[in-house]
Order: sequence, then structure tokens, then C-alpha cells
Amino acid sequence: MFSTSSNYLRSSISTSKVLISNLVKSFTQERNIVNMAGSERLQQTSRILSRSSPSELIVEKPFKVSVIGSGNWGTTIAKVVCENTKQNPSVFVPQVDMWVYDENINGEMLTKIINTRHENVKYLPGIKLPENLFANPSIEATAKDADILIFNIPHQFLPRVVEQLKGHVRPGARAISCLKGFGLDKNGVALLSTYIEDHLNITCGALSGANLAPEVAKENWSETTVAYKIPRDFRGVGKDVDHSILKTLFHRPYFHVSVIEDVAGISVAGALKNVVALGCGFVEGKGWGNNAAAAIQRIGLGEIIKFGLMFFPESKVETYYQESAGVADLITTCAGGRNVRIGREMAKTGKSATELEKELLNGQSAQGILTTEEVHEWLKRCGKLEEFPLFEAVYKIVFCGAPIEKLPDMLEA
Amino acid sequence: MFSTSSNYLRSSISTSKVLISNLVKSFTQERNIVNMAGSERLQQTSRILSRSSPSELIVEKPFKVSVIGSGNWGTTIAKVVCENTKQNPSVFVPQVDMWVYDENINGEMLTKIINTRHENVKYLPGIKLPENLFANPSIEATAKDADILIFNIPHQFLPRVVEQLKGHVRPGARAISCLKGFGLDKNGVALLSTYIEDHLNITCGALSGANLAPEVAKENWSETTVAYKIPRDFRGVGKDVDHSILKTLFHRPYFHVSVIEDVAGISVAGALKNVVALGCGFVEGKGWGNNAAAAIQRIGLGEIIKFGLMFFPESKVETYYQESAGVADLITTCAGGRNVRIGREMAKTGKSATELEKELLNGQSAQGILTTEEVHEWLKRCGKLEEFPLFEAVYKIVFCGAPIEKLPDMLEA
Repeated sequence: MFSTSSNYLRSSISTSKVLISNLVKSFTQERNIVNMAGSERLQQTSRILSRSSPSELIVEKPFKVSVIGSGNWGTTIAKVVCENTKQNPSVFVPQVDMWVYDENINGEMLTKIINTRHENVKYLPGIKLPENLFANPSIEATAKDADILIFNIPHQFLPRVVEQLKGHVRPGARAISCLKGFGLDKNGVALLSTYIEDHLNITCGALSGANLAPEVAKENWSETTVAYKIPRDFRGVGKDVDHSILKTLFHRPYFHVSVIEDVAGISVAGALKNVVALGCGFVEGKGWGNNAAAAIQRIGLGEIIKFGLMFFPESKVETYYQESAGVADLITTCAGGRNVRIGREMAKTGKSATELEKELLNGQSAQGILTTEEVHEWLKRCGKLEEFPLFEAVYKIVFCGAPIEKLPDMLEA
Repeated sequence: MFSTSSNYLRSSISTSKVLISNLVKSFTQERNIVNMAGSERLQQTSRILSRSSPSELIVEKPFKVSVIGSGNWGTTIAKVVCENTKQNPSVFVPQVDMWVYDENINGEMLTKIINTRHENVKYLPGIKLPENLFANPSIEATAKDADILIFNIPHQFLPRVVEQLKGHVRPGARAISCLKGFGLDKNGVALLSTYIEDHLNITCGALSGANLAPEVAKENWSETTVAYKIPRDFRGVGKDVDHSILKTLFHRPYFHVSVIEDVAGISVAGALKNVVALGCGFVEGKGWGNNAAAAIQRIGLGEIIKFGLMFFPESKVETYYQESAGVADLITTCAGGRNVRIGREMAKTGKSATELEKELLNGQSAQGILTTEEVHEWLKRCGKLEEFPLFEAVYKIVFCGAPIEKLPDMLEA
């Protein structure tokens, strides 16, 4: 159960201390308070923490953090996290383990390269990694002592990875999923964080935002959103992961973190933005200009919100228009990237999405194409196609050969 | 007073008829219904109109429409409107008068050129104008018979224009302001539409959206928002301007119109977006990438909403994140234009905004600079500076020489 103010004070006597002044300020900010509405537990934490500023973040025993995945985004997040664990040794065990699917790179193993030369030469070349980052070739060993597991793998690998982890995750561990997207199967739409929760029996939040990995790795300023709902079995402030712990773990001067509760909202926005980006590509390829691209983003944001509130009524409308994981990620994604590129080339060349995927993406897929199809199938089953004219227009253009010129008509009120 | 259903039916017997099927559909759409909440009068109109679909838009006497202003945006809006008055002669007098500040262009008067060659060679060259557009050199003559006056002039000319119009506007005429921005004086923030209402004693709405004029003139697809609050002295459906009349007047296949009530919301968004665009220019000029630009837009949208709700509590949060005049206009403006350009060059060259205005804009001003100062002065007087860190950071960079590198720190929660 959630610790009360007096529990908190009692526990503070016996635990180590660390001063984190900015952290508490953030809790008192109006936006966060608004986002926290609805969770009494969290509001209580907030009130406690904001009582004295600068205040002290106290934990009973430092948390051990591990990262599952080592692509460019996985490695970047591991770098961010290592900087914070090193800086806050009373809150976190400084060494962060990162599971690497090991491979031989010109006669040397990737894990060895990372651990000796402190560079992920395969997925994040040119970026110096912290020395407290340990590349671990064993997924089981990476996970076993972790109090906080950060998932950051391509989402098609999730079922296999989760299978491997079964029985190797500490009971009561907490997780954050950096996977973008959600699963759509015959039972409906499902969050990937829910998949992790259900299969590993651990509470899982999410991290998402306007975060092109190379820009974050270079420490260009950006923002992100971490979503985490304090679970019913919360062990108490200082003994378990809460919003202040997550902010301390992820926030950097160049990587501003907002911590909210709305896991569903940020996951829905992260998946559906790619459908909108295809639409932006169409109007860009046709040379229709900035007004049209902005219109697609506006309509897209509206349909994302509608979809979110329809199928995840617990998600909050503010998440979509006010968080980095919402409107900002949509804007970044529509400014460039794989899905815009496919849409643009479809408009310019008249080729199909499938042809262009082969030609332009080396057999990789543009996630928006798959999501467009899944969303269509799901909305069709629900009889809701007409309520999402942009998603449906993108589907018809990508899968049924509808002419892009008809897009404005298809969107007409 | 507002006509009841039975009045409406009675009046339909004696008036001309025109079939507008799409119109009514739009009224039944969920988004519009949501936007209309709070106005019983309007909901009543909506219910009446949506009863039979396709329905008939009936007016007692066609409305005469005039446009005050003939710059590139004024001429473009006049073109849009002329296409609709011609297509709906039972609803509107086909001829639209547009007041032109007349001038000699190579020996020929501009009004004569527009009326004979159907091109505004000075402000919208290369665009064929409708033949039912009449360029009128007399502002008084342009206004005097108008039932609907559309204002579309640079906003610094508004006081003079309004002075000229006094005594020449039909009692009971209605107006739409296409002016971007609002006035900030010692009494606080004031809408330009309110200025028109107060000085001419006519009800005034607004039109704003992601509308770069040259793209609309070329009939590239775009969207806009018209805001109009049905006044207390509404003379009844078919006898006065309502949302269906405004949609018929402005909506084109290439120019999609959403009609709402929130005049304040679209005006606030239209003014403050330019401050945000300066901020976008800074991060662009520093080469910080797409994540940072998206972050500025996200924070900017949040501060626009906060400013709007604080000083215009009647404005609706949905207007900002869901209308073309809100988020879409912000995105278009931050994708290019004068204010982004000034911000970008400040970051690249270290020159001051004033220097760059002179160098780059031929002595014209970037509206965001003025708005930044006005907003700062106003927030300072209200003791609210700290609640708007982005607006204040832009102010400090533009007016106090704060280094752009400090922007992330200035925005840190």
C-alpha cells in the first residue's frame, strides 16, 4: 500500500539521502497536477514531495536498472540512464546492464567492443558511451537482478524476448517499455506494455516522445514523456518506483522528461502517428504545400484522440495534445522519416507502397503501412470506419489504389 | 429573436430555395456538436437543419457581401467568396464588392485593372479572379449595402478604416474579421473583432486557419476555421447570418471550412503562434533538429492554451488543439515564414532581431517581435511571467540579449 506522510518520515531516518531540487519543483507545476488528477495515491506523493523544496529523494536500497535491447534507440536510452545512475548513486546502482544480441563485428564481439571501447559501433557509431554501461550478452543475466527493466527492442521481437525472460525476472520488478506501437489482434487493440505485464507479471509503464534517436544521442535538446501508473501493490515511497524515481532516472539537461500516468494515451499516439505521416507524405509528394500538410496533421491528431478515447477510455485527451509523446511526436514524425518518404514517393511515382518499401527501405517495412491495415481491420469489425475518414483514406490509397487527388473529397465534412 | 421551428417552416413558404446537402451533414457531425455546446440558440438551429437531409437553405432576401481590403489574403478571400456567391444566387447577391486602396500601376488604376483584366497584378499576380468580383475604390460605397462585411487589411490600419466606415455601415450588418492578432493596450488584451464591434456597432466573427494565401489562391487544398457567435438580436433563420450561411459563403472543395463559436480562441491562437515561430527559428538556426523544433511547438501550444483560458475564459480548449486556426496554423507558421526566418538568422549570425528585420524584410516587421514584447508587458503587469517560460525566453533572447544556448534551461521544469 501507499505510504502515508508519517511512514515516509519514519523511513527517511533509516535511509540514505540525495538532494534533487529540480525534481520537486516539477511536481508542483500545474500541468503535472492536472495530469495526475484521478490518482489519489499519486497526488498524495506529490503533496508530500512538494512540502519542502529543495527536498530530498530517499530510497531504502538503490535500484538496479537494466536495458533490454541495444539498437540505436536502446543504446541511446541506456546512455541517458547511465548518466543519471552515476550521478545519483544513492538512488540507483551505478552500473547499468544492457542486453546485447551479440554478434561478431570484424572478428570481435559487439559486447566486448562496447565494454572496452565504449561505443556501439554497429547501431550508434560515433557516440561515446558511459563507462558504467555494461553490455551483457545474456538476456537472463541482464534481467535477473533488475529492479527496473527498460524494454527497447523492435516490437516484433517482443513475444520471443518475453518468452526468454520468463522465470528470470525478479518478483516485484517494474518495467518501462520504449516500444512504439500497440498490438492489434482478433481480440482488439492491446498495449505492448500490457503484453509485458501479462506475460511477466510485472507492472509496466512506457516512454515515448519526439525523440529521433541520433539527435538524443548527440545530446541535442529534446523532450519525452514517461507514463507510469502507480500499481496497487506499491511498496511505499523510497521502497518502490514512483514518478520521482522515474524522473531522476530519465531526465537530463538535454532530455526533458514529463512523468504522467497515461500509458495508453502515449502508446496509442505513438502507433497512429505513422498512419498520419503516410498522409503527410501524399500531400507533400503532390506539392500541395504547407497548408495541406498542416491540415493532415490536424485531422490526424483529431482521429488519434478519437481512437484513443474510444478504445482506451482511460486515456486522457491532454496526453494527446499536450505531451511530447502526443502532438510533438506527431509533428517530428510528419517532418521526416520512413513513412512520410513512402507516402511522398507514392504520390510522385504512382508506385505502390509495397514496391517502394522494397526499393527504398532494403526490405525493411514502414510501420505505418502495417498499422494502417490493422487499424482498418479493427475499425471495420467495430463498424466505425466512417468516423475515421483520414485513417480510411490512407487505407484506400495504400491498399485499394484510390487516387491521392481524391484525398480532400474523402476528408470533406 | 431566434426563430422557432414553426417560424422557420412558415418563412420557408414565401422564400426562395436552394439545395445544399453537404451543409447539413456537417451540422450533425460530432465535432461540431461538441463545439456548439453551450449555445442553446445554435443547437436549436442545428436540430432544425439536421431534421431533413439533404435539406434546403432558404433565405428571405439574398445577402450582399463586401470585402474590405485587397492585399494577397484579402484578394484571395474575395475570390473564394465570389465563387460561392455566384454558385448560390438565391442565398447571396452574386456581385461581391472589394474595397481597393487605389493606386496607379504603370499608368492604369489598380481597380480598373482588376475589373477589366480580372487580376490583382500588384498583390496577387498570376491568379485569375472571378468576373463577379468588383474592385471598388470607395470604402464607403463598398460598405454601404453590405449585409456581410469581410475585413481583411493589415491590422495597423484598422483604426483608420473603422473611422472611415462610421456612418456608412448598414444597421444590422454582420462582419467577419480575417485580421490576425489581437490588440494589447493598457487595458489588457482585446480582440480585433471586438474593436470592430465596439466602433461600428455590428456583430463580428473571425476567420483564421493554416492558410498561406498563395497556396489558397492556387486552390491547393487547405482548411480554415470561421468563428461566429449568434448574437442576441439574431433576426431568425433565413433572415440573418448563421453558421450555415457562413459555411456556404466560405467553403470550397479546396478550402474546407469548420464553423464554430469561439472567436476569442482562434484570435488568440492566430496572434501567439508568431512568438512560437521565433522560438522555432532559434532552434532551427542552432541546428538542434526536429525533436527540438517539435518541443518548441508543443510548449508553445501549451502556453497559447494557458494564455487563452487565462485572459479569455470563454475560449474553448478544443479550439486550440482541434481547429485549423489552432494547432494547424501553428504548424504551418513554424514550418516557414517571416518569424521563423528572423529567429533562424539570429541564431546563425548573432545579429539582433531589429538588425535582421531591416536586412531581411525591407523595413517590414516580423509580427512576432511586436507580439513578444506586448505579451511580455502584459504578463508582467499581471505578475504571470513565470507561467509562460517559452514566451518569456523568446522575449529575453529578442530584447535582452539572452543566449539562445540557454533556451533549454529557461524551459526546464
